[in-house]
Amino acid sequence: MSGNDSIELVALDADDTLWHNEPLYTSARERFCALLSRYQPEGIPDERLHQVEMRNLQHFGYGVKGFVLSMIETAIELTNERLAITDVRTIIGLGQEMLAAPVTLLEGVREAVEELAACFRVILVTKGDLLHQETKLASSGLGDHFTGIEIVSEKNVEVYRRVMSRYGVQPGQFVMVGNSLRSDILPVLEAGAHAVHIPYEGTWIHEHVAAEHLRDAAYHEITAIRELPALLRQSLLAKTR
Amino acid sequence: MSGNDSIELVALDADDTLWHNEPLYTSARERFCALLSRYQPEGIPDERLHQVEMRNLQHFGYGVKGFVLSMIETAIELTNERLAITDVRTIIGLGQEMLAAPVTLLEGVREAVEELAACFRVILVTKGDLLHQETKLASSGLGDHFTGIEIVSEKNVEVYRRVMSRYGVQPGQFVMVGNSLRSDILPVLEAGAHAVHIPYEGTWIHEHVAAEHLRDAAYHEITAIRELPALLRQSLLAKTR
Repeated sequence: MSGNDSIELVALDADDTLWHNEPLYTSARERFCALLSRYQPEGIPDERLHQVEMRNLQHFGYGVKGFVLSMIETAIELTNERLAITDVRTIIGLGQEMLAAPVTLLEGVREAVEELAACFRVILVTKGDLLHQETKLASSGLGDHFTGIEIVSEKNVEVYRRVMSRYGVQPGQFVMVGNSLRSDILPVLEAGAHAVHIPYEGTWIHEHVAAEHLRDAAYHEITAIRELPALLRQSLLAKTR
Repeated sequence: MSGNDSIELVALDADDTLWHNEPLYTSARERFCALLSRYQPEGIPDERLHQVEMRNLQHFGYGVKGFVLSMIETAIELTNERLAITDVRTIIGLGQEMLAAPVTLLEGVREAVEELAACFRVILVTKGDLLHQETKLASSGLGDHFTGIEIVSEKNVEVYRRVMSRYGVQPGQFVMVGNSLRSDILPVLEAGAHAVHIPYEGTWIHEHVAAEHLRDAAYHEITAIRELPALLRQSLLAKTR
């Protein structure tokens, strides 16, 4: 991969890159734990919920509906089946609130996406629930700036290769931008493409990666999306952090 | 649209066109009703479930996870909150069984898809849950025959136009094949493209369309997918039923 490749396709992550997402989950988790605290649960709700989520991920995939089912399962288990049926309804209500929550863009997103779309083909590459992500994109008002929308069940090297092939670009012409080292950065670098990391405070623990996986990883890190257009226009995507 | 257009892209529906799906839902519905019958529910479970599903469709979309959440909601309501918490677990278990069910191809599918793939570009266009549909396709062993996989949140005329544009074909070069008049046939005809209907016994009532919407609709109807390759090779897609 040469540092002189010219970027042709800019792929943006959605949740916690364009709009706030993790705070909705954090708030739901907190309310879930508060709900269970009335039962003196046999275990630590937050920890157990994470375990159940991880176990269910392969069947349920990402998104609110699977999260709700995992919360119900965890609650039944931790209360030793003493959970009141009305609290099942409360948990489903938490999910419905999440699905209905307004889309709040991160600061500077609208301007950055407009600026990017004037210079490059811009696509969205996101995990999560198909309908919910489409709904959020529609609410965001950003839809017109994207050449394509790729909602995927997992972000791994094969998926990124398929995306590049679909849009007819070489790895050197592709850059992925997102907040998750695990999903937006490492598999992209493995595919030989460029990556820009914009950390988001409170990124889901599942998306964290151990430091040893980052050794020798060559990606850019910026603190806010407003820095992105200038970075890409300079095409200074050499192997430096 | 001319009847002499030559087909270039064949799009196949998945559930109840390539593999059996509706029987899984029918069986789950039956077991759900049996479960509720013990409570002398205040209403007809199957009818009420359908109403709740329809109400939730805009938030949950298609697929097993939303179906499970709708079953739980219906059960709580119809039992006037007398539902036992263990039965919530039973309902979640119904969903997990559906997600884990083996993929059973309809008769003649493998041969038909192989034959089609030798003559045309073949893609999959399906609604439903992203991860679940990908998993089913992988289990089906048919994946290699498809040029592309389009898992969409709804099948309407805009979605079909987007698919045709993505694969660079004109409406006259595109044919959609599936079991649902509502999803696979009518919006495709509206987009000016070709459609082939293969009825499946027991198609979900939501997919039914009233006879008046079919007046003047020009699509082909065959009784089994094995008839499809010959039909398309003849390119006899004139406006006749």
